[in-house]
Amino acid sequence: MDAPSGGLFTDLYELTMAQAYWQSGQTAPATFSLFFRRYPPDRAYFVFAGLAAVLDFLEGVRYTPADLDYLRSLGRFDAGFLAYLAGLRFTGTVRAFAEGDVFFANEPVVEVTGPVVEAQLVETFIVNQVNLHTILATKASRVVHAAAGRQVVDFAARRTHGVEAANALARAAYLAGFDARSNTLAGALYGIPASGTMAHSFVMSFASEIDAFRHYARSFPDASTFLVDTYDTVEGTRKAAVVGLEMRDRGHRLQAIRLDSGDLLDLARKARAILDEAGLADVRIFASGGLDEFEVDALVRAGAPIDGFGVGTKVGVSADAPWTDCAYKLVAYAGRPVLKLSAKKQTLPGPKQVHRFRRADGAPIRDVIDCVGEAIEGGEPLLVEVMRDGRRVQPDPSLGASRQRFREGFARLPDRHKAFRSPEPYDVEISSALRDLQRRVSDETRAREVPGGEATGPRR
Amino acid sequence: MDAPSGGLFTDLYELTMAQAYWQSGQTAPATFSLFFRRYPPDRAYFVFAGLAAVLDFLEGVRYTPADLDYLRSLGRFDAGFLAYLAGLRFTGTVRAFAEGDVFFANEPVVEVTGPVVEAQLVETFIVNQVNLHTILATKASRVVHAAAGRQVVDFAARRTHGVEAANALARAAYLAGFDARSNTLAGALYGIPASGTMAHSFVMSFASEIDAFRHYARSFPDASTFLVDTYDTVEGTRKAAVVGLEMRDRGHRLQAIRLDSGDLLDLARKARAILDEAGLADVRIFASGGLDEFEVDALVRAGAPIDGFGVGTKVGVSADAPWTDCAYKLVAYAGRPVLKLSAKKQTLPGPKQVHRFRRADGAPIRDVIDCVGEAIEGGEPLLVEVMRDGRRVQPDPSLGASRQRFREGFARLPDRHKAFRSPEPYDVEISSALRDLQRRVSDETRAREVPGGEATGPRR
Repeated sequence: MDAPSGGLFTDLYELTMAQAYWQSGQTAPATFSLFFRRYPPDRAYFVFAGLAAVLDFLEGVRYTPADLDYLRSLGRFDAGFLAYLAGLRFTGTVRAFAEGDVFFANEPVVEVTGPVVEAQLVETFIVNQVNLHTILATKASRVVHAAAGRQVVDFAARRTHGVEAANALARAAYLAGFDARSNTLAGALYGIPASGTMAHSFVMSFASEIDAFRHYARSFPDASTFLVDTYDTVEGTRKAAVVGLEMRDRGHRLQAIRLDSGDLLDLARKARAILDEAGLADVRIFASGGLDEFEVDALVRAGAPIDGFGVGTKVGVSADAPWTDCAYKLVAYAGRPVLKLSAKKQTLPGPKQVHRFRRADGAPIRDVIDCVGEAIEGGEPLLVEVMRDGRRVQPDPSLGASRQRFREGFARLPDRHKAFRSPEPYDVEISSALRDLQRRVSDETRAREVPGGEATGPRR
Repeated sequence: MDAPSGGLFTDLYELTMAQAYWQSGQTAPATFSLFFRRYPPDRAYFVFAGLAAVLDFLEGVRYTPADLDYLRSLGRFDAGFLAYLAGLRFTGTVRAFAEGDVFFANEPVVEVTGPVVEAQLVETFIVNQVNLHTILATKASRVVHAAAGRQVVDFAARRTHGVEAANALARAAYLAGFDARSNTLAGALYGIPASGTMAHSFVMSFASEIDAFRHYARSFPDASTFLVDTYDTVEGTRKAAVVGLEMRDRGHRLQAIRLDSGDLLDLARKARAILDEAGLADVRIFASGGLDEFEVDALVRAGAPIDGFGVGTKVGVSADAPWTDCAYKLVAYAGRPVLKLSAKKQTLPGPKQVHRFRRADGAPIRDVIDCVGEAIEGGEPLLVEVMRDGRRVQPDPSLGASRQRFREGFARLPDRHKAFRSPEPYDVEISSALRDLQRRVSDETRAREVPGGEATGPRR
């Protein structure tokens, strides 16, 4: 039997619901909104990412004979339904923010409209991918912001939750402004610049540290970065300076040294002094070792003579915010707007649009979530049709173009929303028409479903 | 051009080091130890997982023509080295703990010995996979322990960092004792039992909640779990009871209801009372909604009438401990034991073994890390050869066998090491021979590399 396909990457309940929809003749068009309910700690914006993976999936999703064999083996699916699944394709419409756009909590960033079975079955994959790429791009944007123009390189390939996540991180981090990454596979896949230094093992395998540096310099006479902390950072830097001068005598140049442990501020100052005294002012200092935006920011503010940062562990899993409350909720079925009832967290019914209002200098000041088709003056509509009848309406922007779009959009977002601790919330309003619709649907639903009046249970 | 292969999933520095090793004639056998330096918060053990993925990679890793084309395009690799890479295979030896074994900080759980280039190049993948699977299996084991025999199902497919991580979680969670998972693909890949209920969207798409239940019951007359919190949990449970009685009249049975929000303890009690009063004492109550081991433990201790838990978001990314300090360090080169110098965190030189000592009833009381070949009496050696000359020495144990191994090993680990908050550390000793070796290598290295005496820099 062939291996199961990606079509099976769906929660089983999507398939059981699909059978129940199908058997109930419940096959009208539905609209689902994808949004992030609230911010993780110390966040007041997100960076939208992962759309290309979603569109690839939607164009390609199908149930192969191997998939259907597996489902049949579970003993709970109807033969007619499985035959229907065999021919199923995604034929719907997708509207979305653009890759690299800054967005805010509760804004619908993807809306999927199509026959309810199709739009339901793709939920698991869409949420998984937008959530993953957005979490990583958002985290990466914070590190870039903290580095304030210094080089930032992704070292996280060994720390991410799998190879797929490492490649997603490399892509998302480049989108958000990283300069390079160490993950060779992601470099090949996405054409992102390559970067690499050496590990402690290399140094230890030679008879002495200075031998290791000399051998590496022979292999990479103009592309060497020496890792200097295997035994003692100050002594290691002195040896790097010796070899750096030997390289210069041969007409080459030592690129950089790398600090990977200890008090990076203090050691960077000592290393800078050693290199400068040796006449190696052009040798750069690169730092790594458990860094995230908080530590990079502290080093930059302290004036550490560090030219570039390698970030890994904490960025690779977005350690302070590894998950979000990303939801994909039914908002309309057969033209009827619907919502979940909840005193605290009602969903917003119906297909929506988001308009962004800006100051004259381009800085965004307010977003308004409104009903599709509502007349809103002066704002820029952010949800754009990207797929119709199950096919992309145009090719994806290049990663470079999305990176540029992010760079421009992020630069215009006021700094108060980008603070690393307790950033100020951005103003997101709900249009009065949408508010009225929400009230009406909520009242009707409550009257129908909760005879006693107020809903008592749901919190989300 | 063909797509790049998994062989390129390596930090670029592994490849630059490989070229420098190769050009320096530095091709002797090396041994690398993989270990976890310290525990994340509230952990005093880990569950070893991911070995099969590592062995698959080692047996299959190679550099395809497409990979070599990409590397050539970077302009920093020597043609002779690329020709050498084209023929490279992993030909080494691997010793490892068994899948599902409980282990502790600083213990070498995988040791790789082979020509240094081969053993170096595979670092990124090995660390990535053992780290991922071990983090997830460890987190899952805590949830199973908290559930104290109640059913636990993995709902995290939409929250993990990618599809690969979702499949890894489904497998690791089953290894650690979960009963089922919602991820259909993982079910097909690993033969793990399937589970699925319904989503709010299903309920909202129908004209009324009770209609939705009735339609679902017709599709799954003996396998229905009704989600009751879309509008109001108490009212939803009453409707579920009505439909549950209708199902019984037709000779079928409502399996369960699912609570997904609100005060789960209070709502579970109310729901249990409603179902019992209706004569539906056999309808189970299933709870979900942001649960982790801490909340499951609180509900179980409070005596909540909940028969099963669905856990997703916080378990899928191991939210309180999404990363570890997993390291893969050179410990010997050409028969010479080596280490990094560090006042606080010296590595342990040379190939090692770990022996576990137990009480008469089987409870582990102490592990000893020692030198390979050292005579240790009475302990059980935990590192076993699993690969020789680049091939597995025997087939992997089945997932079911590893699950059983974990269950037995975990049951014997005293509860004080399994506490959810501030567990008591388990006793891990270093043999006196290993301690002596560490001192000797450390002294020799310091004398050679740090003329002033004490190392000043490295912290890790």
